[in-house]
Amino acid sequence: MNAPNELLPGVIARPMPAAMKAALAQRFGERFSTAAAIRDQHGRDESVYATTPPEAVVFCESTDEVAFVVTQANRHAVPVIPFGIGSSLEGHLLAVQGGISIDLSRMNGVVRVNPEDLTVTVEAGVTREQLNREIKDTGLFFPIDPGANASIGGMSATRASGTNAVRYGTMRENVLGLTVVTASGEVIRTGTRAKKSAAGYDLTRLFVGSEGTLGVMTEITVKLYPLPEAVSAAICHFPSIDAAVRTTIQIIQMGVPIARCELLDANAIRGVNKHSQLTLREQPMLLMEFHGSAAGVKEQAATVQEIAKEHGGEEFQYASTPEERTKLWTARHRAYFASLQVRPGCRCQSTDTCVPISRLAESINESIAEAEASGIPYWVVGHVGDGNFHLSYLIDPNDPDEWTTVERLGVQMVERALRLEGTCTGEHGIGLHKMGYLVEEAGDGAVAMMRQIKRALDPKNIMNPGKVFAFD
Amino acid sequence: MNAPNELLPGVIARPMPAAMKAALAQRFGERFSTAAAIRDQHGRDESVYATTPPEAVVFCESTDEVAFVVTQANRHAVPVIPFGIGSSLEGHLLAVQGGISIDLSRMNGVVRVNPEDLTVTVEAGVTREQLNREIKDTGLFFPIDPGANASIGGMSATRASGTNAVRYGTMRENVLGLTVVTASGEVIRTGTRAKKSAAGYDLTRLFVGSEGTLGVMTEITVKLYPLPEAVSAAICHFPSIDAAVRTTIQIIQMGVPIARCELLDANAIRGVNKHSQLTLREQPMLLMEFHGSAAGVKEQAATVQEIAKEHGGEEFQYASTPEERTKLWTARHRAYFASLQVRPGCRCQSTDTCVPISRLAESINESIAEAEASGIPYWVVGHVGDGNFHLSYLIDPNDPDEWTTVERLGVQMVERALRLEGTCTGEHGIGLHKMGYLVEEAGDGAVAMMRQIKRALDPKNIMNPGKVFAFD
Repeated sequence: MNAPNELLPGVIARPMPAAMKAALAQRFGERFSTAAAIRDQHGRDESVYATTPPEAVVFCESTDEVAFVVTQANRHAVPVIPFGIGSSLEGHLLAVQGGISIDLSRMNGVVRVNPEDLTVTVEAGVTREQLNREIKDTGLFFPIDPGANASIGGMSATRASGTNAVRYGTMRENVLGLTVVTASGEVIRTGTRAKKSAAGYDLTRLFVGSEGTLGVMTEITVKLYPLPEAVSAAICHFPSIDAAVRTTIQIIQMGVPIARCELLDANAIRGVNKHSQLTLREQPMLLMEFHGSAAGVKEQAATVQEIAKEHGGEEFQYASTPEERTKLWTARHRAYFASLQVRPGCRCQSTDTCVPISRLAESINESIAEAEASGIPYWVVGHVGDGNFHLSYLIDPNDPDEWTTVERLGVQMVERALRLEGTCTGEHGIGLHKMGYLVEEAGDGAVAMMRQIKRALDPKNIMNPGKVFAFD
Repeated sequence: MNAPNELLPGVIARPMPAAMKAALAQRFGERFSTAAAIRDQHGRDESVYATTPPEAVVFCESTDEVAFVVTQANRHAVPVIPFGIGSSLEGHLLAVQGGISIDLSRMNGVVRVNPEDLTVTVEAGVTREQLNREIKDTGLFFPIDPGANASIGGMSATRASGTNAVRYGTMRENVLGLTVVTASGEVIRTGTRAKKSAAGYDLTRLFVGSEGTLGVMTEITVKLYPLPEAVSAAICHFPSIDAAVRTTIQIIQMGVPIARCELLDANAIRGVNKHSQLTLREQPMLLMEFHGSAAGVKEQAATVQEIAKEHGGEEFQYASTPEERTKLWTARHRAYFASLQVRPGCRCQSTDTCVPISRLAESINESIAEAEASGIPYWVVGHVGDGNFHLSYLIDPNDPDEWTTVERLGVQMVERALRLEGTCTGEHGIGLHKMGYLVEEAGDGAVAMMRQIKRALDPKNIMNPGKVFAFD
């Protein structure tokens, strides 16, 4: 299903010369592909944009191979788009200027686990679920969980966060070091395995969140955490979204170290119930998780229950066994796919803003009022402990009026977030879709500085061109 | 007391033209100074380097004033050195190419406290103690504590951390946004007050730790934390440094959320006892602090006590009243000044490395063995929960052999840290002193990338030139 044309960026092809194709074909054999199906698969993500395929795809298996491809691309000024598993949400992967997609999914080795230091180094194509499976025996886990089973490379590139970020931080706080292929095809390393450092510019965090526009991250060292002695998950229903949000605000202001604090509105629950055969009451709900010692977890839950009660929240229902917990979180993570079934044939357009915690009620309430008034089906989930929420519209792709309405509502929602001193994206990134908003948020001066950095590190503009900000 | 000449960088004057002096004198009146005493005061820090004064000093009171000065400096290609309170440790403030020192100590206003969002925005000259005094009534605190009562601007510039970082992170994790005067004199803003964001390049973290080489931070928004319901501090003596370090390693590996975990060796305690009239046993010691609920704090302490016992640690002695706690921490923070009294007329040369936690014992033990063998008085303190420690030598400034020995031991210590996959500086920064080590740690490619960024953002190399890496 394609988005209407007006949502598509203009395609400026920067064709790959025959010499480059020959060099790649020779080095990679069948791992270099120009087949339409492969190209199509790499020319889209989970955004509403129509597929915009690259000219070719190469499946790399090592940093050296990536360096070879980028060296070629740099020589011939051909765009390079790093590709993990394709779960990005703002058009990050579309080949809007043509070029080559570097598929990193075969770079899926856990390079080195250092349980005694709470660190692990992985290749960029390792997914978060795979990582947690592979380190299961160590008693440690990697907490960052954006919902999708994204690759660690993709999560680093978009500065992902998700449900556990309220306690454990985002990729920004959890990446210790990187191996990067620069735009000229050189290999550099950033950071060390030490927990902190004051040595030079923070290149690690410059690459984290740069959305593939400065280089290709091929190996990533991240922090791990001891599996908590006790984990308990609870759901709590509220008379209104406002009540759930005000409860959250107070939890955060009191410094309760809650591990997850997710809001679902009645519409989201409706979808989840249907998709995951659950019977949750279709009423605003917080889905929470507490990590700590057995006593600590009880204490946290008791504090939160008390706060919830003040706001009309009902008794907690606990999911204490790992199976019950997994069921609930799996259902939460499937909210996106669940929602697609609510309106057959629809496309889901999600907006993602994040505001200072005290402004969250205002931010959500006004956005929902606008959504209600639009008449277009929508649902709301939020990593509300961080002030971050998503409003998702289920759009009839054949109705241009709906697209227009949703785009307009998105603008209003982002402008509200900025007015409330927040950001146009808490975790999805800028991609193609939010380039205008970035300028509004950061200002011309700051975006000009980003452009100066880009120009210095990628003078031929080969790294994922056409994303994040206008450049030439 | 001056360091021997061989420790001094070559001074390359870039003189300030008369037109610039006139413009600054006109705008700033007496706040623009070329008096020798003022210049000397701004041409040094807490490092061993000899005073290297700037050509002039200007006391700015607003971002606009800073922008005016930098615009002038940019026009005339004159170096600019941002100055907070002068507590840096690696020669950051020395005017090795001449130029103007911008003293930000009068920009000491708390611009805006948002207790409901756990954020505060301050001018760069606000010190951490002042900040905590001014927000006392909110029930919140700013945890980052490098020992010195440094300015928030200086702490941001050097990516400072200190005693609380093991629990609350460093300036890297705690700065949300900045107002920056760029090298061309423009004013930009980075970040927002939202807790997280995926919007564009992480300019905030590019400036944090850039040591004044990319622009002048004039306002900083940082995170605050609720004052814990309960705080308890305890000391525990150990039969050896190794035992104290192994206890620490296990505390961290078990995920105990300890708030402070400081090592002091017998030499450090000797100095502290004398200086602060304490009677601590002169034997390796951990000074710890636990934050949380009353029950949580007890539980943490009990867990740690058990671990300590396994390693031969003695019974905890608790400092439960705020007064007792303050006395202990004040003594700890005065360790530096205390040490200077141990050897009258000495200079103190501290090295600062940080390694993955499992390598800490090796890192400390070998360094201490070398220090012992040297015969030069030394003392050790460490934020050991982060794998970070300082070995400080008390040097006779008139004995060039001692300087040479200590420099050699510093090299060995840094090389050991790098071999153990750590960093040449956990928190002091690169400054003048560690430029060679940065190359060793990050590699030529990464340092070349830092240089490319510097060239893009400061093409005339006016921002704190001659620091962090070689550039021309």
